[in-house]
Amino acid sequence: MTILSFFSRASRSFNGYPACSKLLVLCTLSSGGLVAYSESQTDVSNTSVEINAKDCKKRRVVVLGTGWAGISFLKDVDVSAYDVQVISPRNYFAFTPLLPSVTCGTVEARSIVEPVRNIIKKRNGEIKFFEAECIKIDAANKKILCRSTFDNNLVGNEEFSLEYDYLVIAVGAQVNTFNTPGVVENCHFLKEVEDAQKIRRSVIDCFEKAVLPGLSEEEQRINLHFVIVGGGPTGVEFAAELHDYVQEDLVNLYPTVKDLVKITVIQSGDHILNMFDERISSFAEQKFSRDGIEVQTGCRVISVSDKEITMKLKSKEEICSIPHGLVVWSTGVETRPVVKDFMGQIGQGSRRVLATDEWLRVKGCADVYALGDCATINQRKVMEDIAAIFKAADKDNSGALTVKEFQDVVDDILERYPQVEHYLKSKHLSDVTDLLKDPEGNARDEVDIGGFKLALSHVDSQMKNLPATAQQVAAQQGAYLSKCFNHRQQCEDNPEGPRRFKGSGRHQFHPFRYKHLGQFAPLGGEQTAAELPGDWVSIGHSTQWLWYSVYASKQVSWRTRVLVVSDWTRRFIFGRDSSRI
Amino acid sequence: MTILSFFSRASRSFNGYPACSKLLVLCTLSSGGLVAYSESQTDVSNTSVEINAKDCKKRRVVVLGTGWAGISFLKDVDVSAYDVQVISPRNYFAFTPLLPSVTCGTVEARSIVEPVRNIIKKRNGEIKFFEAECIKIDAANKKILCRSTFDNNLVGNEEFSLEYDYLVIAVGAQVNTFNTPGVVENCHFLKEVEDAQKIRRSVIDCFEKAVLPGLSEEEQRINLHFVIVGGGPTGVEFAAELHDYVQEDLVNLYPTVKDLVKITVIQSGDHILNMFDERISSFAEQKFSRDGIEVQTGCRVISVSDKEITMKLKSKEEICSIPHGLVVWSTGVETRPVVKDFMGQIGQGSRRVLATDEWLRVKGCADVYALGDCATINQRKVMEDIAAIFKAADKDNSGALTVKEFQDVVDDILERYPQVEHYLKSKHLSDVTDLLKDPEGNARDEVDIGGFKLALSHVDSQMKNLPATAQQVAAQQGAYLSKCFNHRQQCEDNPEGPRRFKGSGRHQFHPFRYKHLGQFAPLGGEQTAAELPGDWVSIGHSTQWLWYSVYASKQVSWRTRVLVVSDWTRRFIFGRDSSRI
Repeated sequence: MTILSFFSRASRSFNGYPACSKLLVLCTLSSGGLVAYSESQTDVSNTSVEINAKDCKKRRVVVLGTGWAGISFLKDVDVSAYDVQVISPRNYFAFTPLLPSVTCGTVEARSIVEPVRNIIKKRNGEIKFFEAECIKIDAANKKILCRSTFDNNLVGNEEFSLEYDYLVIAVGAQVNTFNTPGVVENCHFLKEVEDAQKIRRSVIDCFEKAVLPGLSEEEQRINLHFVIVGGGPTGVEFAAELHDYVQEDLVNLYPTVKDLVKITVIQSGDHILNMFDERISSFAEQKFSRDGIEVQTGCRVISVSDKEITMKLKSKEEICSIPHGLVVWSTGVETRPVVKDFMGQIGQGSRRVLATDEWLRVKGCADVYALGDCATINQRKVMEDIAAIFKAADKDNSGALTVKEFQDVVDDILERYPQVEHYLKSKHLSDVTDLLKDPEGNARDEVDIGGFKLALSHVDSQMKNLPATAQQVAAQQGAYLSKCFNHRQQCEDNPEGPRRFKGSGRHQFHPFRYKHLGQFAPLGGEQTAAELPGDWVSIGHSTQWLWYSVYASKQVSWRTRVLVVSDWTRRFIFGRDSSRI
Repeated sequence: MTILSFFSRASRSFNGYPACSKLLVLCTLSSGGLVAYSESQTDVSNTSVEINAKDCKKRRVVVLGTGWAGISFLKDVDVSAYDVQVISPRNYFAFTPLLPSVTCGTVEARSIVEPVRNIIKKRNGEIKFFEAECIKIDAANKKILCRSTFDNNLVGNEEFSLEYDYLVIAVGAQVNTFNTPGVVENCHFLKEVEDAQKIRRSVIDCFEKAVLPGLSEEEQRINLHFVIVGGGPTGVEFAAELHDYVQEDLVNLYPTVKDLVKITVIQSGDHILNMFDERISSFAEQKFSRDGIEVQTGCRVISVSDKEITMKLKSKEEICSIPHGLVVWSTGVETRPVVKDFMGQIGQGSRRVLATDEWLRVKGCADVYALGDCATINQRKVMEDIAAIFKAADKDNSGALTVKEFQDVVDDILERYPQVEHYLKSKHLSDVTDLLKDPEGNARDEVDIGGFKLALSHVDSQMKNLPATAQQVAAQQGAYLSKCFNHRQQCEDNPEGPRRFKGSGRHQFHPFRYKHLGQFAPLGGEQTAAELPGDWVSIGHSTQWLWYSVYASKQVSWRTRVLVVSDWTRRFIFGRDSSRI
């Protein structure tokens, strides 16, 4: 059994040296741009908390969700300081950016998932995982109610509750149908791994049905009409994947109907990929038009039946219906019911999304944190605190702020209110004290409160929302929060955050700051568009190779990394599988 | 794009040289025994039929089923002579011997399936495939009725009919529940790829449920009690796979419940694997006992509820119930409803299984062939034809058969009645004329009809049934039948079969003769038992490597071969995946 022991040894040594994971990237990389997307994780050394903390009972942390945010938190949280429990209805982490590839079999579903237990096993087995759904957060009593749902009739209670000292909500969001009639019944979604698998089977169904005897050409055309509602990154990538699948593989297997296939993307805005740079958006539209993918912009879907999709053309106020074989609904996300219910309890019932402060603490509820797609950070406005800032800065209480006094607090202002920096950039101001210049642009020695207000009055217009459905945000937030948890004791004594303008002392932690590392939009035909930091845009075949490299390197484990790369290789050699399983 | 063209060229060259497929075997083979299982296909050269046959309208052949028998027929049937249409509810061929491996993720489902369209693409695209189920065979009007069932509401008729000149029934069989109450509702089966995937998810469910908070140890034990009903090759292999999965992978992920797992095999007979050599059967029982897999022999299951399985101990006439977490029912197969209905039409309504003659022609219905698990060959008895044989052999009509006269017909007898050869072997007779010796063992010059009857009276006791659920039988029958189809014209003029004793002339074709090439029984822990031709038995680790080699080489395509081997490698390195998808 020497061969066995060799393998297991090799496997163990891989686990031991995560740095090796970069090797693969070097092998597959054909462009120098990787640096733009390299490991985003902030430096989280597992500093152990004070010894006496260990002696007391560990504080209980309950984490809801095993997506990007939850897993990123779990990977670094100090298990010697906390008693960590994780609840999720999925016992695996899914590498969601590759979901569109799963719909067409470019990558297998199993290649993009990693069991949560494999991940937490590496944390000395001190993290407990329960496969269940949190159905109720009881913030008043600091506990949650969970329900497990299994297909089988297994014995034991279905419901159980867990108490927490800290709760980390990272349950993500759910598909937003905008209450459009018929969507839930007749559309496919592209949110979970199961969705992607179902789409894959259904695409094959459409082709198999189309080639059955006795169908008219019109019926064949209808069955082979694939409609994607939503021209965002997911919808566009799926359209591109489907087009490649059809052209590279299916036309050879279903030659009699190859000219009847049609793909339509319906977008309510004026352009697809409108959250990207204009160059990318128009490149994508041109490429789709060359590929024969129809893009209908300015259309709002008003209902979907099992045979037809009905929409309103915004420009003409006209209503039209088109028959379809398959509809994929990919228009955005909304808050999950359990979070909605929780928001009601804590006075956020009127909001659309759960709000947290810049430290990811849920507003209106102590010891609860929310991150990822289920929450947004409510950035504090400068103008709300302007008097307090002025007062704190005006050390000598003279009623006027000198440049020197302003300079003393400017770092704290920049950290606490990131919009100030964005404002400076947008105005091409090199120095923050330039803010204090008078309206004519002349330097002043000091300003009074009126002048100070005026100087900062437009700063808040530069507040930026973080991108939604963005795994980068979620992952960075998870890593940030675990760092805060690990330094809690330490930072209680030596706060590291910016100065409190309204109170005294400093904030315990630095506020969360998102670092945008770029975004990809694969467009099919081995071409990808990428928006990189610094307004860089890169489009074409070399970007596709950058995409391969980045996605291979970002995999959560060596296992999935090997599987994904071998799936890509298999597809190059053998094409995609069309078996209906 | 040179890399792309390189890959596609490499891929094409693989397709071009199927002989290369043996290379892999050479690489993985560690034992010399492969010869025992090498490609079983009889030499089917695609001899083209006469030119004038092509000019007339091609005869329509409809094939039902894409399992071992159907695919093996399709791979060789001459598409220039026949208009071939294939109907199956599955658009892929599944390599069923690896199904038990799929239940635990040792091999992925997709690695053992090959799309039918990929297979028929190689036959110049002249074979048509329809994904539908045949729901009615109308033998009188030579047509079949089919129904397509898709999850989606696609347009077009659900039902259609096809006319045939020749019908090849290769629909396989369905699981036999013996009408045991509760089996359909509460048991898993192991017949289709979907079954295996479902078992995989359910096994993980049992573990996830067991580790939820609030379960008593008793409840945990129940959820982790896996019961397999049926101690045949499939049930035993699944039990072994499950045991390996639990011991090699799951105990590390669910350490708190590792001692509560129990696997029970329930067998109605006195031994598991009782169709194998006794040495294999007892080795398996000993290994299972060492592994802690409980084997309950002599038990008949009388009902299954969602929580309990109730059985009768044959010896004690006692009834007992045991709670379970998951039951896999693997006790044998029965005829499908569509075939049952067809049997009623052709006067076989009282039979259990569809009967064919030795040329795979369905008895009582012209131009219909049946092969694989859906039919059995009704071997003609010597004693039914004894008078005709005597009359045909007694050329001079003397009423007595000389040794010379007997020798003239002996080859035809041996071919037409294979039981004669089995009888000779069982009696250790080297020469067939020894049959004519008198009861004292003395040679006779001639025998009369009475003596001839006496001499052959025990021969029919040596008639052997072909193994059921045997892919080898099905594959050989498919290859045999395609050869008959391809030589039809040729053999009409020059019949190649044995002499007709009851009529004149010769049979058109040689009758089908099954060549047994051995059988494997994987027992887990990298050990396999094998029964090879010539009463050879091989058990142990080296046999496992023989198993790997054989199953790699028997794959239907290069794609699945590469996938299966890489799955095995992945399992060695990373273990099996426990994600619930």
